[in-house]
Amino acid sequence: MTPTDHSPLTTDLLRSLRPHQVLSSLSERMNYRYDAIQFGVTPLAVVLPESTADVVAAVRAAKAAGVPIIGRGAASGLSGGVTPVQESLVIAFTRMTALRIVPERREAVAQPGVVTLKVTEAARPHGLIYPPDPASFRTSTIGGNLGENAGGPLCFKYGVTGDYVKALEFVDADGDVHRLTRDCYDLAGLLIGSEGTLGLMTEATLRLIPPPTYSRTLMAHFAEVGQAAEAVSSAIAAGAVPSKLEFMDRACTNAVEDYLHLGLPREAEAVLLVDTDGDDLQTVDAEMNLVEAACLSAGGVVRRAADPAEAEALWQARRSISPALGRIRPQRMNEDIVVPRSALPDVVREIRALGDASPFHLVQFGHIGDGNLHPNIMFDPRTESSEAVHELAHKIALVAIWHGGVLSGEHGIGTMKKDFMRDAVDPVTLDVLRDVKRGLDAGNRLNPGKILPDAASPSTLVGDSQSRNAGGLAAGKG
Amino acid sequence: MTPTDHSPLTTDLLRSLRPHQVLSSLSERMNYRYDAIQFGVTPLAVVLPESTADVVAAVRAAKAAGVPIIGRGAASGLSGGVTPVQESLVIAFTRMTALRIVPERREAVAQPGVVTLKVTEAARPHGLIYPPDPASFRTSTIGGNLGENAGGPLCFKYGVTGDYVKALEFVDADGDVHRLTRDCYDLAGLLIGSEGTLGLMTEATLRLIPPPTYSRTLMAHFAEVGQAAEAVSSAIAAGAVPSKLEFMDRACTNAVEDYLHLGLPREAEAVLLVDTDGDDLQTVDAEMNLVEAACLSAGGVVRRAADPAEAEALWQARRSISPALGRIRPQRMNEDIVVPRSALPDVVREIRALGDASPFHLVQFGHIGDGNLHPNIMFDPRTESSEAVHELAHKIALVAIWHGGVLSGEHGIGTMKKDFMRDAVDPVTLDVLRDVKRGLDAGNRLNPGKILPDAASPSTLVGDSQSRNAGGLAAGKG
Repeated sequence: MTPTDHSPLTTDLLRSLRPHQVLSSLSERMNYRYDAIQFGVTPLAVVLPESTADVVAAVRAAKAAGVPIIGRGAASGLSGGVTPVQESLVIAFTRMTALRIVPERREAVAQPGVVTLKVTEAARPHGLIYPPDPASFRTSTIGGNLGENAGGPLCFKYGVTGDYVKALEFVDADGDVHRLTRDCYDLAGLLIGSEGTLGLMTEATLRLIPPPTYSRTLMAHFAEVGQAAEAVSSAIAAGAVPSKLEFMDRACTNAVEDYLHLGLPREAEAVLLVDTDGDDLQTVDAEMNLVEAACLSAGGVVRRAADPAEAEALWQARRSISPALGRIRPQRMNEDIVVPRSALPDVVREIRALGDASPFHLVQFGHIGDGNLHPNIMFDPRTESSEAVHELAHKIALVAIWHGGVLSGEHGIGTMKKDFMRDAVDPVTLDVLRDVKRGLDAGNRLNPGKILPDAASPSTLVGDSQSRNAGGLAAGKG
Repeated sequence: MTPTDHSPLTTDLLRSLRPHQVLSSLSERMNYRYDAIQFGVTPLAVVLPESTADVVAAVRAAKAAGVPIIGRGAASGLSGGVTPVQESLVIAFTRMTALRIVPERREAVAQPGVVTLKVTEAARPHGLIYPPDPASFRTSTIGGNLGENAGGPLCFKYGVTGDYVKALEFVDADGDVHRLTRDCYDLAGLLIGSEGTLGLMTEATLRLIPPPTYSRTLMAHFAEVGQAAEAVSSAIAAGAVPSKLEFMDRACTNAVEDYLHLGLPREAEAVLLVDTDGDDLQTVDAEMNLVEAACLSAGGVVRRAADPAEAEALWQARRSISPALGRIRPQRMNEDIVVPRSALPDVVREIRALGDASPFHLVQFGHIGDGNLHPNIMFDPRTESSEAVHELAHKIALVAIWHGGVLSGEHGIGTMKKDFMRDAVDPVTLDVLRDVKRGLDAGNRLNPGKILPDAASPSTLVGDSQSRNAGGLAAGKG
C-alpha cells in the first residue's frame, strides 16, 4: 500500500480497523471486481472484517463517505451478485470463519466466511450434516450461499440454503446490528437471496440433519430429451424421491467426455444421473428400482453403480461440467431458469432450437428434479459480441417465463438478469420490491444496481447506461 | 339492512359491489368482531368479495374513506389476528372459494376462502394431499392459514403453510394487484404470516404431495415430563422422523378424560401421541420401533394402536383438547411458544410452576417434536382478572424467550402477543420491521394494531391505550 492510495474513506476506515484489514492498493483492490463469471468496477477500498463490530465500523465509514457497500464471500457466484457497478467499498467476509456446532440442538452457528463444506466437516463427528451443496461448495461461503439462496443437487430432496436457516444476525445500512428468528415478519427470509442489497449477514444459525445411511446411484441415457423428462416425471409420480436428479444434454455430455474420457454415451441426447438415499436399505433400493423402471419404460439405457467407487466416478462427470466447458470457449453465460417439470421437454427443445439458430455453442444441464436448468452460452469475446450473448440469454429467460417458470433457481439475479426482471415481474410489483428495498436501505447504499431493474427514480444512484458500461463478462470458472 | 346504517363508506362500497356483498346492519357487523378467542371493535362495514376485482373495489373504497381494512377467513384464529382494534372495513373471504387442482404440476390454485380440508379432499382423487393440518382444518381457510402461517401435527415432518406456497396473488394497500413467485426478493414469504398487515392475499398456488401409504400410531405415558421430552429427543436422535409427535400434560389429559372417558392414564404427568408414516411398511414399522424403544428406555408405558380404528380413537383424544378445555372455564388464553427441544423439560416444568403459583387452571399440550408448546390459561372473566391472565401469559412468553425460543409457532402474534414482541425483538430491529410495514403500507391502513407493539410514532393510527381498551378475551372455542 502506498500513501497516495489513501482516500478519505481509507483514512476513516483505518481509524477503527487495523491496517491489515484494509486493502487500498490498486493491485489488491482489482482482485475484488470479479465473481466467477462477471467483472465490474474496481472498488475504492476493501475491508476484511474479523467480527461483527468490524463490519459495523466499515458500514459507518462508508455511510459517512457516501460510498456504496458490497458484501462478498468467495465470489464463486455466477450472476454478478458481488461485482461492483460503481466505485464502492467491498466488505470481504473471508476472515469471519468462526463456526460452532451445537449437537443437542442440531445447529451450526456460522460466520459468513465459513466455507460451505466446512459445516458438514465439523458436524459429521456429531452424526450430522449440512445438506445444501452448491457445485462450488469446496470454495463458496455460507455468507455467499445466504446472499444467493444457493442450491445444489441435494436440494431436490433436502431443500435450499434458506430452508436451513433458523436465525440470522445482520448489519443494516446504518450500521445497526439485528438478530432475527424466522418469526413474523420473516425478515430473515427476505434477506436470504437478497444479494446483500437489504443488509449484511454476519452470523447464521443453521439447521443440521443426520446423514442418510445408504445411497444408490444410477446413470441413464436417452435418444430424446423428452424421454428423460418423462422418466423423471413418472419416477416421481410413482413415489420415488431421489436425493439427486441431474440432467446433461448431448453437448454437455460431449464436453465432459472430451475433457475426462469417462466413456460417457456421446450419441445420447440426454443423460440422467440419479441418487436415492435413506436409512433403510430396502427403501433406498426400492426407490432406485422405481427410477430404473421409469427410465427403461421411457426408452432409456440404464447403468447402475455397483459400489461407491463407481458411483463416485459417475458423479465426477457432473462435477466436471464447469471445467469442461471452460475448454470450449474462454467465456460463458450461465443461466439458471426453473420451469414446471411438466414443461421440461418443450423448454429443453425450445432452448436447443434457440442455440442452434444462434452463432454460439450452447449446452444444457441442471437439477431436472426441480425443473432447474442451466443453459450455458459459450463464447469468445475477441470474436463474438457480448450484446448478442445477452440477447440470446434474454430469449432463454423468456422461454422460461412463457412456460410459467422463473429467472433463477440458485444463482440469483445479480447484474446478469436484472434487466430480465422487467419480463418476469409486472411494473407495479417491481415498485413494491423497490419500496421494500427503500424501507431497508433508503439511501440505496447496499449493493446498488443489483436485482431490481433501474427505475427513473431520483433515489437510484446508478443510472442505466452507467451500469451497462460497468458490467461485463469475465472468464467462466464457476 | 336499514337506510340509517348507510355510512358514506357503505354508500361508496355499494357503487362497485352488489348489495348482498356488503353487510351494514349492526346485527350482521357484530358477527365480525370475533376470532376463536378474542373480540374487538364492531366493524363499520363488512364486504364479502367473490373475486380479486371485488377486493380491489373494497380496498379503494376504504382508502377513499380513510378507513382501516382487515382481511378475515373463518376467524378460527387464536391470537386476535382478525379482531378489529378500531372501526374498520372487514373483508371476509368466505365466498372466494374457487379451487383448481393441477395434477401434472402437483399444484392446487386456491382462493383465500377455500376451507383447508377441501384442498386435500379435491387433491386425493389425483393421488395427492395438502399436508398442513391446523387443528381447525375443517373450518379454517387457506387465507387465514397464510395470514398466520399455520401449522399442525403433521408439520413436524412435512412443514408449515409457508413451505407449500409456490406463488401468491395479493392486493396492496392502494388496491393494486400483484403476482409473486418465491424468487428474490421473497415478498411472498414476507406476506405469509403477516396477518394481513402488508397485503391481502387473493390467490395461492399450493404444492401438493403424494400421501404416505402406511402409518403407525403409538401412545406412551410417563411419570415425569422430562422423561417424555427425553424419549422424544432420543427417538429423533436415533433417526426416527415421526409424522406427528404430540404432547399432553396431566392437567390436559384429565380435562380430555373428564370430557370423553377414553380410559386415558390420569396419573401420568405426560402423554405422548406419535405417528410414523411412509411408503415402505418396514421403514414405518422400524421408525415406530425406534420411538417405542426410546419411550421404554425413558421409563414410559407404551400402547401401540393395533389397527386404524384404534389409532383414530387415540388421536380423538388430541383433537378433543379444545372442546374439553371449554368445559373447565368459560374463557382461555392459548399460548403458542416454540423452544429448542433440548430445553423442553425445563420449559414445561417452569411453566407448570408458574401455573401452580397462579390462581388459574393451566394446561400444556403441543407439537413437542418442533418444541411448539400451547400452555393454555383457563379463567372465568366474571370472577377473575383479564390483566392477571395477560401477566401470566407474559411470564410464559418470557420463559420461552429466556430459553432461546420464540413467541409463536403457528397462531401468530395478533393483538394477544404484540406487547411481548418488545421482549422478543430488540428496539432497533422492531424499527426495521416498522420500516418494512411502512414500505408496504405507508398509511397504516392494513390491519393496524397487530404484530408490532405501538411506537410513539405519529404515523401509527392506533394509540396504546386505545388498543388496550378495544382488546378483550372472548369465549374460547378454537
